[in-house]
Amino acid sequence: MPQILSQIHKPADLHKLTSAELEQLSKEIREVIIETTSNNGGHLAPNLGVVELTLALHLVFKTPKDKIVWDVGHQSYVHKLLTGRYKEFSTLRRHRGLAGFPKRSESEHDVFNTGHSSTSISAALGFACARDLQKEDSSVIAVIGDGALTGGMALEALNHAGHVQTDLIVVLNDNEKSIADNVGAMSTYLTRIRTDPRYFRNKEEMEDVLKRIPSIGPHVLKVLEKMKDGLKNLVVPGVLFEELGYSYLGPIDGHNLQELRAVLANARRLKGPVLVHVLTKKGKGYGPAESNPSLFHGVGPFDRATGKVHKSDGPPSYTQVFSETLLRLARQDERILSITAAMPDGTGLGAFARNFPSRFIDVGIAEQHAVTMSSAMALQGFKPVVAIYSTFLQRAYDQVFHDACLHKAPVVFAIDRGGMVGDDGETHHGVFDMSYLRHIPELVHMSPKDENELQHMLYTAVEYNGPIAIRYPRGAGVGASLDKELTLLPIGKGEVLRQGTDVAIIAIGNMVSIAEEAANQLEEQGIRAAVVNARFVKPLDEELILKLARDIGKIITIEEHILAGGFGSAILELFEAKNVDCKVKRIGIPDEFVQHGSISILRETYGLTVDNLARTAREMLDGVSLSRKRGPMKIVCPGELR
Amino acid sequence: MPQILSQIHKPADLHKLTSAELEQLSKEIREVIIETTSNNGGHLAPNLGVVELTLALHLVFKTPKDKIVWDVGHQSYVHKLLTGRYKEFSTLRRHRGLAGFPKRSESEHDVFNTGHSSTSISAALGFACARDLQKEDSSVIAVIGDGALTGGMALEALNHAGHVQTDLIVVLNDNEKSIADNVGAMSTYLTRIRTDPRYFRNKEEMEDVLKRIPSIGPHVLKVLEKMKDGLKNLVVPGVLFEELGYSYLGPIDGHNLQELRAVLANARRLKGPVLVHVLTKKGKGYGPAESNPSLFHGVGPFDRATGKVHKSDGPPSYTQVFSETLLRLARQDERILSITAAMPDGTGLGAFARNFPSRFIDVGIAEQHAVTMSSAMALQGFKPVVAIYSTFLQRAYDQVFHDACLHKAPVVFAIDRGGMVGDDGETHHGVFDMSYLRHIPELVHMSPKDENELQHMLYTAVEYNGPIAIRYPRGAGVGASLDKELTLLPIGKGEVLRQGTDVAIIAIGNMVSIAEEAANQLEEQGIRAAVVNARFVKPLDEELILKLARDIGKIITIEEHILAGGFGSAILELFEAKNVDCKVKRIGIPDEFVQHGSISILRETYGLTVDNLARTAREMLDGVSLSRKRGPMKIVCPGELR
Repeated sequence: MPQILSQIHKPADLHKLTSAELEQLSKEIREVIIETTSNNGGHLAPNLGVVELTLALHLVFKTPKDKIVWDVGHQSYVHKLLTGRYKEFSTLRRHRGLAGFPKRSESEHDVFNTGHSSTSISAALGFACARDLQKEDSSVIAVIGDGALTGGMALEALNHAGHVQTDLIVVLNDNEKSIADNVGAMSTYLTRIRTDPRYFRNKEEMEDVLKRIPSIGPHVLKVLEKMKDGLKNLVVPGVLFEELGYSYLGPIDGHNLQELRAVLANARRLKGPVLVHVLTKKGKGYGPAESNPSLFHGVGPFDRATGKVHKSDGPPSYTQVFSETLLRLARQDERILSITAAMPDGTGLGAFARNFPSRFIDVGIAEQHAVTMSSAMALQGFKPVVAIYSTFLQRAYDQVFHDACLHKAPVVFAIDRGGMVGDDGETHHGVFDMSYLRHIPELVHMSPKDENELQHMLYTAVEYNGPIAIRYPRGAGVGASLDKELTLLPIGKGEVLRQGTDVAIIAIGNMVSIAEEAANQLEEQGIRAAVVNARFVKPLDEELILKLARDIGKIITIEEHILAGGFGSAILELFEAKNVDCKVKRIGIPDEFVQHGSISILRETYGLTVDNLARTAREMLDGVSLSRKRGPMKIVCPGELR
Repeated sequence: MPQILSQIHKPADLHKLTSAELEQLSKEIREVIIETTSNNGGHLAPNLGVVELTLALHLVFKTPKDKIVWDVGHQSYVHKLLTGRYKEFSTLRRHRGLAGFPKRSESEHDVFNTGHSSTSISAALGFACARDLQKEDSSVIAVIGDGALTGGMALEALNHAGHVQTDLIVVLNDNEKSIADNVGAMSTYLTRIRTDPRYFRNKEEMEDVLKRIPSIGPHVLKVLEKMKDGLKNLVVPGVLFEELGYSYLGPIDGHNLQELRAVLANARRLKGPVLVHVLTKKGKGYGPAESNPSLFHGVGPFDRATGKVHKSDGPPSYTQVFSETLLRLARQDERILSITAAMPDGTGLGAFARNFPSRFIDVGIAEQHAVTMSSAMALQGFKPVVAIYSTFLQRAYDQVFHDACLHKAPVVFAIDRGGMVGDDGETHHGVFDMSYLRHIPELVHMSPKDENELQHMLYTAVEYNGPIAIRYPRGAGVGASLDKELTLLPIGKGEVLRQGTDVAIIAIGNMVSIAEEAANQLEEQGIRAAVVNARFVKPLDEELILKLARDIGKIITIEEHILAGGFGSAILELFEAKNVDCKVKRIGIPDEFVQHGSISILRETYGLTVDNLARTAREMLDGVSLSRKRGPMKIVCPGELR
């Protein structure tokens, strides 16, 4: 048990510690974080990078009166450990355990839930303005990485806060990384501050120079006077932030606790918006993470001695198959480009980037820009494949709508992490994309039943002449063998996997295999269930589905997705539009945010299981006569409501 | 007929003109634009501001080989007139006439459709990168206002383009306005460039000063050498853009054609990204628009002699009632704040701003930031009312989701322009919000049947302790008398307006009055239709709707909204969830983008009319027996499909 950390029950306890004890505490914190993430997985590298910064923040500021907003929030482990959550820390990211992100419900020290990037300055400015209106006296601090600063809403807020001029501290945690290497002119600018000695000239030296100039005429003096303000630009790094209205402090060594405390205390006293530029190292204190911060950004369980990530022997992941198929297609088709918003590794585009660097674009954490830029390139004859996780594509909803679909631009949206993602929890589940995309005209939306079909869908998407999305889940495929030859799938056509007469199960994406298993179970009970792999959320295979309604008259839909406006809902709409009365039962996620936990626990929770699907089929059959096989169907209305 | 303009069939025709003729052409263009917008309404002031700029662009660049992307696109009238669309210009914004925004389908000179703000740099960068890959030689120009530059995605793209360093020209059309006065530190910065003479010092003068310094020691020399780069910052305005990797040219008088041509020709020759800072005056050349550019930003038909906007004598608009009610509530409740994204006038928040300046926040064109900042303020006990048009709230989908709803933060979303907006067309119709918001857990979504109910809904929303949205349409109310006393509406409860036995019409928002009229028509034909004002899209009044299903068994829903995932879809889902068989017919907008045109023409197109609703009811009744009044319902399945 860590001797010092175990005695820290609240941030105030830090004040009792000597410098040596604080140093020891840093070590213990790193130890606990490495240990826990090696077991549970988690965002290791970002947290190792902010140990001293978090200590300094809690030594200088008094939460919860002072408010710290953690951008993205994946770097909040140290904060959690210092705010009374050491004891539960081993439950990190486990079902009903501590979340991997700040949660207001966990602690009064977590003032704003985060998960998606670039929100912290907006939230902090909101807190600051609320404080001003309430005439309170407290500090508000946004801690934001240089990667997150490329996100548009962070820049919106940076711009607005510079205008509002209220007291607000933006701590720029500059580790030259978002998840992968950073991009963007801002990032280049920050690097220049880090490396260009010119920026470290101080005002004193400049004034000294001016004093040494022996005799100057009145004209020169006048010009020099006008230079006064300009001098600041010469000798102070951070002119860009100064021009935006911020007092700039930095750059500061983010692993020097003493310096951090001094500068943060200074920032606390300054009026107006202050930008504190802190240089940190991702993965600090754990060799494997220092040398591969991208791998250890968010990592599964690993062996802490060797830094080797535990790999399952299972089938390749959807992401891997996507990665390899795209590479294969790109070799034959020069029109294919790939675009990522700061996730070359997570999305599997790394291999493409290495093979076709000129056809690969990493725009930084900037999903909106990624989509619109891709649309323009598509209009010029290219085939941009934009790979963005389902949850992050939410940021670019308007751009998918306006810039891709209104233009009918042939952009391929590779929507990874479609479905539940497990441990990252409610801010990261990709269970809304069918609902937020299905109502956009012109967009095709499909989802493969397995990793083999993903190959064919990607090929189909690249060949399709319009905006098209493929949604596929996180993690391993089902182990389907991969066809050598890629096949064009007919747009809007589903696949009947199993004939049946009693009930039809129409499944989409990763629910297809569950449907097949359920059909097996039902068969053992004498029930003949048809199983359809819908493939397309939009356009629906109307012909097939209407035939099922006519022939079987009882349909169950299943989707790893929210029910409202989702796949099953599209089928209800079809029947309404075509005046078809057909009994339909939908299985999916109800109207609530899905918490964190293993995917198997979550599927159990929401009935996305073989057993529940089979049970639903049996109940449906119990409710109505099984006799009808052909001809006009009569359904008994329940009359009273259940 | 304008003598010169009528002879301009393509941009190349401009080259034949003398300077005097170009000046005459400017006058003719202004004349035509004033004349046409006084008849048709339109974006007058922005276009009058860019007459010379557009001429200069077409004189220097050769479209469509060179590509001009117009940000927002409301300033593209001059461009339309110069690219062969003078003859059709009188049809501007009319159904099947010219669109008020760039349209690829109208002209090869319109390379990117716009409508929403801040997309131009992304699109232009896409075109530039496509050009580079295709090894072509052409220029790409984004024309963006200083207002649009506060939008996050413009900043994302500005940052990315500064990094990519390909040839790209960003023309910053700085008129110190978005629609209202600009906000943001960037705007302050631009103003400083405009007004601070220090920025107009030129390099020569500085070098001259240095030369005059008689004798300087080696240390001084060394420091001065290091100053070399820094000097640029002293003597060149636009250091911020220079730091972001742009060559900065400006500021330039945007009404001096000669100067514009020279600078743009220079920009054309420069390598890498160039920012051309052009100062223009909104409304230039038309007195009333110059003195009130906000009113004449987007304006209805007006009297050109007096500049008086034609006002209908009709009832107050929904926006007006919202404005007055909010003011009234704010007088009694200090918790109420109001937030706009650069639309204080359009959203009706101007009065609030004047009365409660400290409780009013204009964040600039930054919907994402607006929502997240509001959520933070809501968590501190305030009641932020965020007024954003339905179409623009699309930009903040992820923030509504994560920062308001995941937090259950009591933010009130005042969604103006919910429904079809008419002349602005496909980029502006607010017909998707129920679909993109309905599936977000925790969010209440309601819509008033008239302006009186809007009052009560606003009161209800402010008193509600969670995220809540009110959607109301553009334009005049129905003329309902406004209750003096405000009433709390029960959340999730609809209102039966008319009892009936044959069919139930469930309408939402502005479709309720159509439902009532249709019921009158039906009654004359002996059909008794119940009419329900749903009020809530979410939560639905399940009890009431299920009772209608039980008692009447035939339901028609009507919504001025896309059908996919919309209001009627929610009712289909309810019946599925509760195992209710009930005949439902939905009326709404099919799966396509709605073009521009008057709202009455558009409603006719999509059957959002009294006649179509009554016809649908009659058809529904023809299809089934009318005899059943109580007890278990039997519906004959069509058997074969229509």
